Amino acid sequence: MIFDVITLFPDFFTSPLQSGLLKKALDREIAKVNLVNPRDFVVDKYRKVDDEPYGGGVGMLLKPEPIFAAVESREILPRRDIILMTPQGQSLDQPLLKELATNYDQLILICGHYEGVDERVTQHLATREVSLGDFVLTCGEIPALTIINGVTRLLPGTVAKEESLKAESFETGLLDYPQYTRPPVFREWAVPDVLRSGHHQKIERWRKAQQLQRTQARRPDLWAKWQEENRES
Amino acid sequence: MIFDVITLFPDFFTSPLQSGLLKKALDREIAKVNLVNPRDFVVDKYRKVDDEPYGGGVGMLLKPEPIFAAVESREILPRRDIILMTPQGQSLDQPLLKELATNYDQLILICGHYEGVDERVTQHLATREVSLGDFVLTCGEIPALTIINGVTRLLPGTVAKEESLKAESFETGLLDYPQYTRPPVFREWAVPDVLRSGHHQKIERWRKAQQLQRTQARRPDLWAKWQEENRES
Repeated sequence: MIFDVITLFPDFFTSPLQSGLLKKALDREIAKVNLVNPRDFVVDKYRKVDDEPYGGGVGMLLKPEPIFAAVESREILPRRDIILMTPQGQSLDQPLLKELATNYDQLILICGHYEGVDERVTQHLATREVSLGDFVLTCGEIPALTIINGVTRLLPGTVAKEESLKAESFETGLLDYPQYTRPPVFREWAVPDVLRSGHHQKIERWRKAQQLQRTQARRPDLWAKWQEENRES
Repeated sequence: MIFDVITLFPDFFTSPLQSGLLKKALDREIAKVNLVNPRDFVVDKYRKVDDEPYGGGVGMLLKPEPIFAAVESREILPRRDIILMTPQGQSLDQPLLKELATNYDQLILICGHYEGVDERVTQHLATREVSLGDFVLTCGEIPALTIINGVTRLLPGTVAKEESLKAESFETGLLDYPQYTRPPVFREWAVPDVLRSGHHQKIERWRKAQQLQRTQARRPDLWAKWQEENRES
């Protein structure tokens, strides 16, 4: 998988790409990240990448030319998607990460900045708009990094055991069950007896009951969806 | 605002904290980020921070002792919150960022790793669980960075113009309107006439209509909520 990140702050990515599982995946060439700065594609002598919005308003917008030029400087693989990171986009979720990891060999991630990006980038360059969530950040670099991490995690070879991808949250549509490790008693708090019983069927039942209970209590939206999908079974 | 980040990968944060608006805010001491590694609080000679889950299952869990010790090593300000970053938590949104920025002077952010964190951390140490969204990442560092960015952005002095915080997405409950900057015509695509008309009332009406239309088309969930809240007016 090739990630071409269009960013005014390429240095942002230095240490996150050299950390943990992401570093390992990049070292093993499971994925590759290219950082492309629109500032390098400005023709005027001031290297101006932003300008005031038409119609008034505070803040600056990213101009279209440097972003088009930056994207157009990249090689084109057959299965590619050009994603603009913006709060106006489709909300990021696990099915979307899976789709991106499965259906594409090249993801171009355009990081917004300042007050936003000229609408012509959205209309005529990006093939998709993605939002990290219903909140505002100072930059699109964090959402882009999130996609790089979440997609790379799903690529074959990144996570050692196939199983540890499957059982996780959002694959089942339910929140995860509580987990405990050693020591059996920490301060006055003990690990639930059932988990130390060695009785696998009981453990399974306890875990499933915890998942159902938690999801119902904490996430009525997920719970409604899960009930809908499991009505027949 | 003090952020104490409990992380096995403190190096992850190096370049993001030295980039863009976040760097400026930290330089101006609007916020301070302390990186605390649970590995430094392990007493046994193997510096073991993780162990197998009770009851079986793949992957490793973070042990409780080093995390408790790391958190308890920090100074305690009166208005503090201890947040565990986990997909099982409350979904991050703009009202939550606002609450964190307004009601606290110290945010302790516990980054999960591997398959998860011992439940005793959740039950007896964290005062809140927060999820970045319904997807799985390899680490809690990205969610923690998101909170640092989104909260710091709201602190007085970070964003120059007070107004540029107000008009943004999710403050109104609607998606943002399309924005354009120079050039007036890029390739064959022109800026909408209304935005170049100089007629402020028309521009306002166009923008509001675009916001309503976009929100309705793209985010039925936000649209329903907005209609509910604006029924009386």
